[in-house]
Amino acid sequence: MRVLLVGAGGVGTAVTRIAARRDFLAHMVVADYDLIRAESAVAALTERADRFSARRLDASDEDAVRRLLTEERCDVLLNATDPRFVMPLFRAALAAGAHYLDMAMSLSAPHAERPHEECWVKLGDDQFELADSWAESGRLALVGMGVEPGLSDVFARYAADELFDEIEEIGVRDGANLTVEGYDFAPSFSIWTTIEECLNPPVVYERDRGWFTTAPFSEPEVFDFPEGIGPVECVNVEHEEVLLIPRWVDARRVTFKYGLGDDFITKLKTLRQLGLDATGKVTVPGEDGPVRVSPRDVVAACLPDPATLGDRMTGKTCAGTWVKGVKDGAPREVYLYHVVDNQWSMGEYGSQAVVWQTAVNPVVALELLASGTWSGRGVLGPEALPPRPFLDLLTEYGSPWGLREQG
Amino acid sequence: MRVLLVGAGGVGTAVTRIAARRDFLAHMVVADYDLIRAESAVAALTERADRFSARRLDASDEDAVRRLLTEERCDVLLNATDPRFVMPLFRAALAAGAHYLDMAMSLSAPHAERPHEECWVKLGDDQFELADSWAESGRLALVGMGVEPGLSDVFARYAADELFDEIEEIGVRDGANLTVEGYDFAPSFSIWTTIEECLNPPVVYERDRGWFTTAPFSEPEVFDFPEGIGPVECVNVEHEEVLLIPRWVDARRVTFKYGLGDDFITKLKTLRQLGLDATGKVTVPGEDGPVRVSPRDVVAACLPDPATLGDRMTGKTCAGTWVKGVKDGAPREVYLYHVVDNQWSMGEYGSQAVVWQTAVNPVVALELLASGTWSGRGVLGPEALPPRPFLDLLTEYGSPWGLREQG
Repeated sequence: MRVLLVGAGGVGTAVTRIAARRDFLAHMVVADYDLIRAESAVAALTERADRFSARRLDASDEDAVRRLLTEERCDVLLNATDPRFVMPLFRAALAAGAHYLDMAMSLSAPHAERPHEECWVKLGDDQFELADSWAESGRLALVGMGVEPGLSDVFARYAADELFDEIEEIGVRDGANLTVEGYDFAPSFSIWTTIEECLNPPVVYERDRGWFTTAPFSEPEVFDFPEGIGPVECVNVEHEEVLLIPRWVDARRVTFKYGLGDDFITKLKTLRQLGLDATGKVTVPGEDGPVRVSPRDVVAACLPDPATLGDRMTGKTCAGTWVKGVKDGAPREVYLYHVVDNQWSMGEYGSQAVVWQTAVNPVVALELLASGTWSGRGVLGPEALPPRPFLDLLTEYGSPWGLREQG
Repeated sequence: MRVLLVGAGGVGTAVTRIAARRDFLAHMVVADYDLIRAESAVAALTERADRFSARRLDASDEDAVRRLLTEERCDVLLNATDPRFVMPLFRAALAAGAHYLDMAMSLSAPHAERPHEECWVKLGDDQFELADSWAESGRLALVGMGVEPGLSDVFARYAADELFDEIEEIGVRDGANLTVEGYDFAPSFSIWTTIEECLNPPVVYERDRGWFTTAPFSEPEVFDFPEGIGPVECVNVEHEEVLLIPRWVDARRVTFKYGLGDDFITKLKTLRQLGLDATGKVTVPGEDGPVRVSPRDVVAACLPDPATLGDRMTGKTCAGTWVKGVKDGAPREVYLYHVVDNQWSMGEYGSQAVVWQTAVNPVVALELLASGTWSGRGVLGPEALPPRPFLDLLTEYGSPWGLREQG
């Protein structure tokens, strides 16, 4: 399999390190807007690094992406950029006749009058609009194939297939006890994406009502995370699983709650109140006169790059899917989860826990596609494909998942 | 008197409106980096507007400022820019042989190892360093001549001259009950300056110890403000009065506390934790490639211009000086204050309360200098000059001050 990896940030770099250990990969072109970043990712590889090459690429330039896919005879494009670049990359792959994987879906747009009640453009809507074209092309666009969305969706399908007869609620729950030495505040994941997820109106699915939105930070609950992480305050957040799971898995309700904690919630609310979450540009003095910049880009530039914090970080991160329903006539409640200890991921791969946990899942998926264990056409979520081979291969990668009976 | 006013922002514009009603002014050149701003200020004047003209001027260009002072034969430069431009304007006035007034002093720099205990460069240090040159030139640099510093310093001198035999503590206390309709958060004064004041280590003076610093937001106290504003939580903030008052008024302790309120304190702490208070530049994507911008400028650009909020604002702002000591052998405690109701300042001058309150004081000072009631040479604070004529003329301007006995 020949892969075009777009984006050599934290997740992209971790993808190269994980894929380098696997035989299924014939070649991976590592492309980034910043060629030095792409070259550094490739230069750091020690295992069969001749299968990797670096290229400069502007992810927003659809034609350039299509040409690179063709030129490098890539079977699949793996998108490891931030969600702003989903659509040009998604269209370029379709145009080039390549398969496509991403870890975040096309962006939403809030309802003008009732943003905290009704959906307008939903996450992934722009991608599903092209579902017919993808199906006709015979190619697969496997969307939301990171850890969350991604592994969390695989868990949902696994629960539906093997653990429940009937599902009342599926709630993805994400929490961590990561701390970074020497920083007052250092998010463990892209602040651009975190702001997007947390400040957009959260989306909820109910069978009788369809998709709807709430105010940010709604329905706070304390969720007890496994493996020593413990209880963390979680709130509703806009996330792809809520849009993906109901398309393939039958459940009365689907939510996503993120264990942000009080302090982070305060900071995000402040960014919103000050207008610093905005992506629209403002005019400020530059070195040679006024320039136009996006406040959110400035917020990101002021914070340390989360991918570089691994060696100052301690703790674990947990991604998982809580499912409540009925099995064999009795009520059942389980939490299917995946925990990564930062010390382990740094020692094994030199990658920070959250970044590594995101990166391992698309590599597992690529391997399943390369072997033909997974196959499909059109625009599919991870829950559209058989979950067991995925979970088994993830364990084979040295990173097992867990199941906790509860309730 | 011919005046060069530098800065046609909120305060500068209010200065033109107040000065236009007074006879002492022969001519005022209104200069701004943005000529349109200067022209708009002049165009809005209805009373004897022929005494005003607009010019483009870069306040950081010392030579250009000196040339303009000479060319326009100005007697005095009134600095209504933000504190970054104090030094070039101060030096340009000295070089041109003009008097100089400002409303904020040259900036401080924190102690590298013990920022919350010791001073390093203090507010105004750079200006007082040139005190001999000013004295030799026979010209007056009247520094800190707004409302706070400014009127607050006049109050301190008035208390020492007329109300106390001995002063234990002088504490400037600033509070408001202003709200702005339609905004989650809209500071009523320049956010650039507010960040500078509030996040720098606050400075405190004690007779036995000299000047020293504390951690930001130290010594919280609830101060009850007059005329219906009521109790507001105040904290120590770096402010010029603490540096000025002890040079001319004998007191055991001098502090400045600002009624920020919990919500504003949380926002400022968040800005600091996220590094968004920084003035050093960061690199972010611009429209034609990477650009370098100051995060604090971006914060300012995201918020509404406080000078434009007057018609959505309601409430009052209070500036004042609390003095505790002994008079005729008995303990005494007074609060000398000046309250501006936004509705009044908008109705009378079309200027928002905080901006108007800042602007009226340098105009009163200019009038006292023009009449020869106030005179001096060298670098002086407002407390170096007789307070009574100032307070009387302020009342004549339609904006009386108050005295509350308390304790």
